[in-house]
Amino acid sequence: MPLPTSVTIAERRRLLRAALALARRSRAVVRHYMRAGFAKRLKADASYVTDADLAAERALRALIGRRFPDHGIVGEEFPPVNAAASFQWILDPIDGTLSFTHGIPFFGTIIAVHHEGIPVVGVIDHPALGLCYSAAVGLGAWCNGRRLRVRDVARAARSREVISASDRPRFVSCRRGQAFDRLMRTHPQVRGYADCIGHTLAAEGKIGATVDFGLRLWDIAATQVLIEEAGGRFACVHRSRDAGGDLYGVIAGKPSLVRWLERIFR
Amino acid sequence: MPLPTSVTIAERRRLLRAALALARRSRAVVRHYMRAGFAKRLKADASYVTDADLAAERALRALIGRRFPDHGIVGEEFPPVNAAASFQWILDPIDGTLSFTHGIPFFGTIIAVHHEGIPVVGVIDHPALGLCYSAAVGLGAWCNGRRLRVRDVARAARSREVISASDRPRFVSCRRGQAFDRLMRTHPQVRGYADCIGHTLAAEGKIGATVDFGLRLWDIAATQVLIEEAGGRFACVHRSRDAGGDLYGVIAGKPSLVRWLERIFR
Repeated sequence: MPLPTSVTIAERRRLLRAALALARRSRAVVRHYMRAGFAKRLKADASYVTDADLAAERALRALIGRRFPDHGIVGEEFPPVNAAASFQWILDPIDGTLSFTHGIPFFGTIIAVHHEGIPVVGVIDHPALGLCYSAAVGLGAWCNGRRLRVRDVARAARSREVISASDRPRFVSCRRGQAFDRLMRTHPQVRGYADCIGHTLAAEGKIGATVDFGLRLWDIAATQVLIEEAGGRFACVHRSRDAGGDLYGVIAGKPSLVRWLERIFR
Repeated sequence: MPLPTSVTIAERRRLLRAALALARRSRAVVRHYMRAGFAKRLKADASYVTDADLAAERALRALIGRRFPDHGIVGEEFPPVNAAASFQWILDPIDGTLSFTHGIPFFGTIIAVHHEGIPVVGVIDHPALGLCYSAAVGLGAWCNGRRLRVRDVARAARSREVISASDRPRFVSCRRGQAFDRLMRTHPQVRGYADCIGHTLAAEGKIGATVDFGLRLWDIAATQVLIEEAGGRFACVHRSRDAGGDLYGVIAGKPSLVRWLERIFR
């Protein structure tokens, strides 16, 4: 079921086109640094930031500021802009910076538009894989021009579905260490496709579900619309705060599998 | 340090060229089924087999039989051939059939040559990714013509290295459930890149190490020469038997990280 939104379909189309143009720009920036190399440093939260994160987010902010000067911007690497605006662009220039610095090609760029707190447009671009996932409320979910359709799974086939879970410390940080251990003991096919590739594999229906905890707003900003427009189920099952702000726990994928996981992780 | 082998360098070159030709053939077969679709069925050991596994292994066996009629063949899907021969071709036409059936692109074709039980040539091809990893003793490790060189990691940087581990039931089947749980609690960056992509990411040095248990001979047949020729360390830390034959546990990757993991998993 599409999310309720008061944004007209014409406006959603326009925002989606703009988000896709932004993704093309950030992909070019990120690919430049993949070829040319980059400096990296540890941030206060012990995660990495590189020249590529900073340059990509700067490029995205410049384009948004020029085209939508009244819109707000929330991004991982710089302070918010127009915090009171109805439309907010939510940016993670490189989701999976640790992967990026190690050459693991499964990182992505996350670009989302929320209106009055409701996700309207979501894009996850994988620069190293050449795959761009996009969706807007009521307009379907797509990958490189191919429509995505998640099919639910029968109960009997559930054990053959791959579930991706993020690393254990993220669950512990949200007091879900025991639930994580229970999942590892209960389900035979738990894998750890870290970063946003777990979300895009779920939007394809290639994995049954992703269970991802210890996330910031920009990590999950595009996922709900992408999953729901593909016919899947998205559930935010946890919200807490630490020194860095709000922490979320989300589950996304095939509806019956997500409902089963919600019982474990609520 | 290269594995000791009495096979001449000219012969290793010839076997490597033959293995690469086999990989090109199996890639074509697998890609055909990716486009055309395939039937799948569950085997006695509760793993999947598809038309693609069977057709790819048949094609590989036919080519080997024609070119090396005196060599032995051990493959996942059909009975051994020439079991007493010095040279044995070891084949897994699709390592990661569950991934293959779900469209997860990280499965691979494994082709190895062992001489008197010593690995001499190893190839892991990822048909969906277009990446072919290959090595022969004394001839280096390569991916699509690019030389692979694993650099060791300093102790202080160890916690920033990604370790890939297979799913928990495989460790339990080798009585290593507790060691698995200890790794999950000790190391902050444990991911589950299932199937042979964990091995090829380790041969690239992109992940620090892969820890993989509950494996058959064909699952690990190419990994030792690939990892060691890239400058990494390979350790087989477990061997047991079940109804399906020998089960192995292996660790491969950056030397100091592998040594640390050996202490946990021996």
